[in-house]
Amino acid sequence: MLGARCLLRALRSCSSAPCPRPKPPARLSVRDALRVQSPSGERVTVQGWVRSVRSQKEVLFLHVNDGSSLESLQIVADSNLESRELDFGCSVEIQGQLVKSPYKRQNVELKAEKIEVVGTCDPKDFPLKYKDRPPLEYLRQFPHLRCRTNALGSILRVRSEATAAIHSFFKDNGFVHIHTPIITSNDCEGAGELFQVEPSSKIKVPEENFFDVPAFLTVSGQLHLEVMSGSWRGSSSPSQRWFSPAVPRMLRSATNSLLLAKSISYTEAMEILKQASQNFTFTPEWGVDLYTEHEKYLVEHCGNIPVFVINYPLSLKPFYMRDNEDGPQHTVAAVDLLVPGVGELFGGSLREERYHFLEQRLARSGLTEAYQWYLDLRRFGSVPHGGFGMGFERYLQCILGIDNIKDVIPFPRFTHSCIL
Amino acid sequence: MLGARCLLRALRSCSSAPCPRPKPPARLSVRDALRVQSPSGERVTVQGWVRSVRSQKEVLFLHVNDGSSLESLQIVADSNLESRELDFGCSVEIQGQLVKSPYKRQNVELKAEKIEVVGTCDPKDFPLKYKDRPPLEYLRQFPHLRCRTNALGSILRVRSEATAAIHSFFKDNGFVHIHTPIITSNDCEGAGELFQVEPSSKIKVPEENFFDVPAFLTVSGQLHLEVMSGSWRGSSSPSQRWFSPAVPRMLRSATNSLLLAKSISYTEAMEILKQASQNFTFTPEWGVDLYTEHEKYLVEHCGNIPVFVINYPLSLKPFYMRDNEDGPQHTVAAVDLLVPGVGELFGGSLREERYHFLEQRLARSGLTEAYQWYLDLRRFGSVPHGGFGMGFERYLQCILGIDNIKDVIPFPRFTHSCIL
Repeated sequence: MLGARCLLRALRSCSSAPCPRPKPPARLSVRDALRVQSPSGERVTVQGWVRSVRSQKEVLFLHVNDGSSLESLQIVADSNLESRELDFGCSVEIQGQLVKSPYKRQNVELKAEKIEVVGTCDPKDFPLKYKDRPPLEYLRQFPHLRCRTNALGSILRVRSEATAAIHSFFKDNGFVHIHTPIITSNDCEGAGELFQVEPSSKIKVPEENFFDVPAFLTVSGQLHLEVMSGSWRGSSSPSQRWFSPAVPRMLRSATNSLLLAKSISYTEAMEILKQASQNFTFTPEWGVDLYTEHEKYLVEHCGNIPVFVINYPLSLKPFYMRDNEDGPQHTVAAVDLLVPGVGELFGGSLREERYHFLEQRLARSGLTEAYQWYLDLRRFGSVPHGGFGMGFERYLQCILGIDNIKDVIPFPRFTHSCIL
Repeated sequence: MLGARCLLRALRSCSSAPCPRPKPPARLSVRDALRVQSPSGERVTVQGWVRSVRSQKEVLFLHVNDGSSLESLQIVADSNLESRELDFGCSVEIQGQLVKSPYKRQNVELKAEKIEVVGTCDPKDFPLKYKDRPPLEYLRQFPHLRCRTNALGSILRVRSEATAAIHSFFKDNGFVHIHTPIITSNDCEGAGELFQVEPSSKIKVPEENFFDVPAFLTVSGQLHLEVMSGSWRGSSSPSQRWFSPAVPRMLRSATNSLLLAKSISYTEAMEILKQASQNFTFTPEWGVDLYTEHEKYLVEHCGNIPVFVINYPLSLKPFYMRDNEDGPQHTVAAVDLLVPGVGELFGGSLREERYHFLEQRLARSGLTEAYQWYLDLRRFGSVPHGGFGMGFERYLQCILGIDNIKDVIPFPRFTHSCIL
């Protein structure tokens, strides 16, 4: 009997004949509601946060946003639907009819039949006021609330899309995605400015190292990626040709726009800086690193386009970059990409794949013992290879024109601040 | 004049007439070489690692693999191309002609004209022997070399594909990808078993906290994701209906296979365990957590299919899970998914969106002050919501049938071990 009744009910809901009971109104996102071309009184339910309340004598206007769209949906209600709790910032569920809007600003509005306040919000205490657009710096105080603003919501959506686009590019080009470790016993750059990781005092054995060795937060997964890499360099001469096609292709694919770029050597860059009429805080000199002021000048000098700088002095770069064997001005096959506004967007290098070159460089740095495993990669079937790393947050700053890196990171951490 | 010569050269290389100089042989990956259906002596270059050397009187056989395929390419060479350095594990570049292979095992082989050893490898020192298949446990000693084996190479490729598939699923369903912080000042589960993060002694100011507060490696990004979430629950009753469609859909999409699953409540699970003929180390009792032995039994009892267990005792779960208000046997709207072989694959819950419920739970745990920001999310337009987290490594173990979790992680870290 139960089976037959179920079947009957199923058949009923499939047929186009009117149902004995009224259908519950369809639930629409604000985006989908705004997309309805010719609204003709469809009964729908919309949920979202109230972004404005305007109360007139007989009519109540609300704007409701649920995060699905930058635009809000206008709600028009009889003023008897107003309640004390219905205020700016609260969350609501509204049933009503989608109708054509008489106002020019929007095509559709929702004629409310029922307004339920789901979660209240006291606008006196709520630090966001939608009417003014608070500066990003003000919003940074409220990392748990700032994503409700259009500004942060948009930035984080672009961040999500950019992540996906970059991953797609590499996947489509046959790369394998490797998760590199966060905790490491290596000090990759030899700089020693690391965060150490230890069991908190609540864990039983605080005297000994949990990992038997000191462990740090990693500053780069590049050496780990080298372990995994079976990649071969296409060209046999370590030069700008190697990087020049791959990187703009990646960036172009991710940003969907053409990237013009110029390529100069570090030596050429120094010549340009020396001839500059500008006075620098740090005097440009061959063998000295490029400072922000230099990077800025170079980008401007080249016409405010991205600039690849290649072949840096060996003495400036870590042990793993490939020796160019180019005489008195001794350089390595390194590359940095400088971009307008942001400076260094990424760095890369060909790697020293020759055992004896690497062995000597490690010995000179006193790192031979710590990097036996890295030498092993050259002992057992070494191959020419290289790679690059991009500062993803800098890339976002670059495409979004955001001055402060803290505004493109969902939960930024910095000196004196680890909120949440 | 230069322009005309360039044009001429370009036209020449476009025409099908024979070039004055021989074209350099095309570089093919091993995969692409093996895919050639009817080889007819194309001159190609292949690069890779030597996986076997078999030297006969007049002929030399090599197998070369470059990581693009599980299969190796067979190289056939005149024995005068043999050299002392040409040994198992070395990297080579080989020029020759692709021809039909007379052997059944492969369609194509490469008749070598030139063999260059790019990177040598002394097989005496090299810990991997391709002829035997070393157990995964043996390979774990060599995290920098094990990815050259077919086993680890395949596992890490599946890991990469699974990552992409899961991200695709969420992207296609309108989710936004949020990067949650690695360093946090929260102790999310209240368990206190955390790793603390502090500047290493080399940094100047060791007396004070870098972040002004104690900072830890996070154990979960779930509370941060809650901050970002503007998601609304479809159904108004917190029940299994909420999770049951979303999770199998995600797993099905990622694994591309149908996932049968059963759903029982914690209370039902306890009844099943109490009636079991098996003796458990931990006696099953309402209010006690499910141990591995229990999870195993439940999965077997339900026919070795994934089992959702819902509605756990409030006393077992953290403060943020939603109170079911269900009388003497007080439960929260939590869910765990148990799967054959692995046990708990993921956990999730509806969140306590009601301010006063949450406030009381926090007060009882003495966490009110630390979680004011979390209470804020309920003060300012709270909405019903929930979520789940999956153990990605467990998921890989599950679909690959790998016993030890260390073998699905590129660089595993555990007690007494932080290699590389």
